[in-house]
Amino acid sequence: MRRGLRAKQREPESHRQVPAAKVIRRRLPPFTPFDEDNLALIERCADDLLCETGMDFRGDPESLALWRDAGADVKGERVRIERGMARHLIRATAPPSFVQHARNPRRSVEFGNDHLVFAPGYGMPFVSKLGEERHYGTLGDLDDLVKLTYLAPCLQHSGGVTCEPTDIPVSHRHLEVAYSHLRWTDKPFLGLGTSGVAAVDTIDLLRLTFGREFVDANCCTASIINVNSPLVLDHTMLEALKTYAAANQATIVTPFVMGGAMGPVTPAGMVIQVLAEALAGAALTQLVRPGAPVMIGVMLSGLNMKTGAPTRGAESWLSMLVMGQLVRRLGIPYRGGAASTSAKVVDSQAGQEAADMLLMTVLAGVNFLIHAAGHLDAGLCMSFEKFVQDCDHLEMIARFADGIDFSEDALAMDAFREIGPGQHYLSSQHTLSRYRDAFHISEVLDTGSYEQWRDDGCLTAAQRASSIWRKRLELYEPPPIDAALDASLRDFIERRKEALPASG
Amino acid sequence: MRRGLRAKQREPESHRQVPAAKVIRRRLPPFTPFDEDNLALIERCADDLLCETGMDFRGDPESLALWRDAGADVKGERVRIERGMARHLIRATAPPSFVQHARNPRRSVEFGNDHLVFAPGYGMPFVSKLGEERHYGTLGDLDDLVKLTYLAPCLQHSGGVTCEPTDIPVSHRHLEVAYSHLRWTDKPFLGLGTSGVAAVDTIDLLRLTFGREFVDANCCTASIINVNSPLVLDHTMLEALKTYAAANQATIVTPFVMGGAMGPVTPAGMVIQVLAEALAGAALTQLVRPGAPVMIGVMLSGLNMKTGAPTRGAESWLSMLVMGQLVRRLGIPYRGGAASTSAKVVDSQAGQEAADMLLMTVLAGVNFLIHAAGHLDAGLCMSFEKFVQDCDHLEMIARFADGIDFSEDALAMDAFREIGPGQHYLSSQHTLSRYRDAFHISEVLDTGSYEQWRDDGCLTAAQRASSIWRKRLELYEPPPIDAALDASLRDFIERRKEALPASG
Repeated sequence: MRRGLRAKQREPESHRQVPAAKVIRRRLPPFTPFDEDNLALIERCADDLLCETGMDFRGDPESLALWRDAGADVKGERVRIERGMARHLIRATAPPSFVQHARNPRRSVEFGNDHLVFAPGYGMPFVSKLGEERHYGTLGDLDDLVKLTYLAPCLQHSGGVTCEPTDIPVSHRHLEVAYSHLRWTDKPFLGLGTSGVAAVDTIDLLRLTFGREFVDANCCTASIINVNSPLVLDHTMLEALKTYAAANQATIVTPFVMGGAMGPVTPAGMVIQVLAEALAGAALTQLVRPGAPVMIGVMLSGLNMKTGAPTRGAESWLSMLVMGQLVRRLGIPYRGGAASTSAKVVDSQAGQEAADMLLMTVLAGVNFLIHAAGHLDAGLCMSFEKFVQDCDHLEMIARFADGIDFSEDALAMDAFREIGPGQHYLSSQHTLSRYRDAFHISEVLDTGSYEQWRDDGCLTAAQRASSIWRKRLELYEPPPIDAALDASLRDFIERRKEALPASG
Repeated sequence: MRRGLRAKQREPESHRQVPAAKVIRRRLPPFTPFDEDNLALIERCADDLLCETGMDFRGDPESLALWRDAGADVKGERVRIERGMARHLIRATAPPSFVQHARNPRRSVEFGNDHLVFAPGYGMPFVSKLGEERHYGTLGDLDDLVKLTYLAPCLQHSGGVTCEPTDIPVSHRHLEVAYSHLRWTDKPFLGLGTSGVAAVDTIDLLRLTFGREFVDANCCTASIINVNSPLVLDHTMLEALKTYAAANQATIVTPFVMGGAMGPVTPAGMVIQVLAEALAGAALTQLVRPGAPVMIGVMLSGLNMKTGAPTRGAESWLSMLVMGQLVRRLGIPYRGGAASTSAKVVDSQAGQEAADMLLMTVLAGVNFLIHAAGHLDAGLCMSFEKFVQDCDHLEMIARFADGIDFSEDALAMDAFREIGPGQHYLSSQHTLSRYRDAFHISEVLDTGSYEQWRDDGCLTAAQRASSIWRKRLELYEPPPIDAALDASLRDFIERRKEALPASG
């Protein structure tokens, strides 16, 4: 941690243009509606599934060897894991919480315990801006989104592929994505997990930035590792998982299950499968490098059997809650939730669906929420307007997570003595000394009168949000970066681009 | 209850056009984040407030006499209530749960315990429909809203003044409102609590409908009694409270506090005041008639100090949660929450705010949710489109309240044995036997592809909702009513209108 301290002392004034991220430590406990019997039942079933059916680790002899050496039953690519073994591997060495370091040490984040970290949407191929045609994302869009994330106090984490930079060849994207996060922000970011090559390059860029020794000893990036549900981890994902874990970087093992398609149609069945998959994936990281930071991620949805589209509703909310209880029993950080919607525009459906999932995320005790802002069209589109509205919503969510202040002053007994029945509190000392911060005053939500709203042009929330992000981008100033470091990052990237054939 | 049974046997076929309301009994426990120490602290402070500061019961010597006889300290109109006395009065005789009877016994509802009953918005002066200018509500609008409520399976309760029928003189409104609910639906409804006269007339109409003896022995209506916060109950409210309670009809004692204006600016302070006011009001009903059904209602909001407008956010959510825990300790039903928004149109703000409050309502363990559908512009406007979207949302909320099925079949262990790693579950027996009801398929939310949405005309959720309510009203058929009863109701109403000077 010495480097962190040194960097802090050196920090130039302009580095402080943007306030330190709002650290959210929940004082409100998570919602835990399910009892010990039900939780133990799900755990037993997940153990049975791993032991009897097992899981495929495909195209990666090294992973199979790790499992075999650990004592699992390996036949071909099928790995059957003794009851309790995966849980034991995780509990024995995976850290219950860890810090992901940011280029600016003031913006490092902690995952685990009562910490709540928000990152914007991830992996959207399309981008939408009010008044423009929806289009495929570009590197310019990604840079803009990274800048807007930098300016959003409630997004403590910069995310990763906030939109796909489709104007960059697939084989080069991980380089430009990492550069965008290393250059236009100084918040922590997600390295791509799309291949082993992407993982190796991302780690090399981090070594240039933080120093080789620091990266080996500290978590400087995190990467989503999607399970190919049901019960498969493929070569691509295994390569990325192994590379990041070996380098002591965080992996977020995330099954993504649409009930009825990639898993059973019942919430209980979905959760059993997801827990089994997450156990196996997270345990493998500990076989690769004991102590490597790892989170369990969960993405669950229903399925509209008529259209084949994912639906987000009560089943997803309930599954997120029970998974929260299960992951906390494992004792590692929990990633889940999303301000997600199937809506194609920022309409009342988008607002409703995003709020449902966002609240449930916080109630489930999630530690890391990717897709906290901008998610539209079931994750296919990043909306700049929804990004702004979601960020505003997160400020409210942060207040919620803070719980109620029961201190003597907050009880207001003196105010009651001052103000009698039928009198108002507007001019009471208790109100006057607190009104500035008493309630979140939103930039996006309109709470004025109908007449004022009409005189202001009858704007929707999306229209107000549109002006806000345009104004913010105009005022954006990049965080400082050492010119030599910047040159070495660009040099590395250009050399790698030459070495990697442009594909996709 | 004999009448109820007789009516059920007599029920004509056409009475069944609309399915029995969806009875929601929560299997998911409420969210109870606050501990015994904090709850007891709030109770002590509320007791102190009632004992030291006291509450005004204005313009009503009878109420003061009731308090004096019960042993309270009455000076002028100020009543100071000994610590624990109000709580004791409520606990001693107020029913922990009760049935409100509907004209059609199949649609009677129960309040209390694990029951969750939804009613539409209440008291909105304006009405909005997509593509039309917002206008003052009329009796025609009210009738339409009563019909739409009749057709909504998740609105088990018909509500009351769903919009203000401003084309009817104020002094006559309670009569036409009651008639609308007695004629165009057969679900239970809220009697007006705007005056003692309104209460008396409403009870007379119920006696014509249910029979005098039945009404005296059973709850056939419920009425909102707003506290004039801080710490005042005025003559109008006291008249209505006494009249309904004396007739064994339910009252919903509801303080409505904007923090910083009608109460302290802190959530803890607001909750102390609200609890004190609710205790005093509910206890008075038991002095009027021990055993009279009573609920505690809570409406709390923040205040935008710049505009004076209410803001709904974390403070409201948290206060609703803690009040849920406190009301359950009292052991009577809890009314609270709203699908509320300050938005002026059905946009992403409307969707977000309504979802936030609606979810929190359910988590708070509310038994009766008025304002479950249609609420717009901070309660000034009833939106037909939002009504439809909110009703759809309630269906999802009902699924959520149902919790997770952990039965052996739901665990899907056979399905896991049938489908191996990497296979899909679409054609598994487990999926096929359940997919029809597995997930809520919304009429309002779009979950299809972007291309399909574009080909369907790029509609917003509000536009889809607009078609839905128009179609529903076209298909509406009134529930049957005995012609003689109908004539006697109209006769009573016309006679009362002649007797009451048209005012307002």
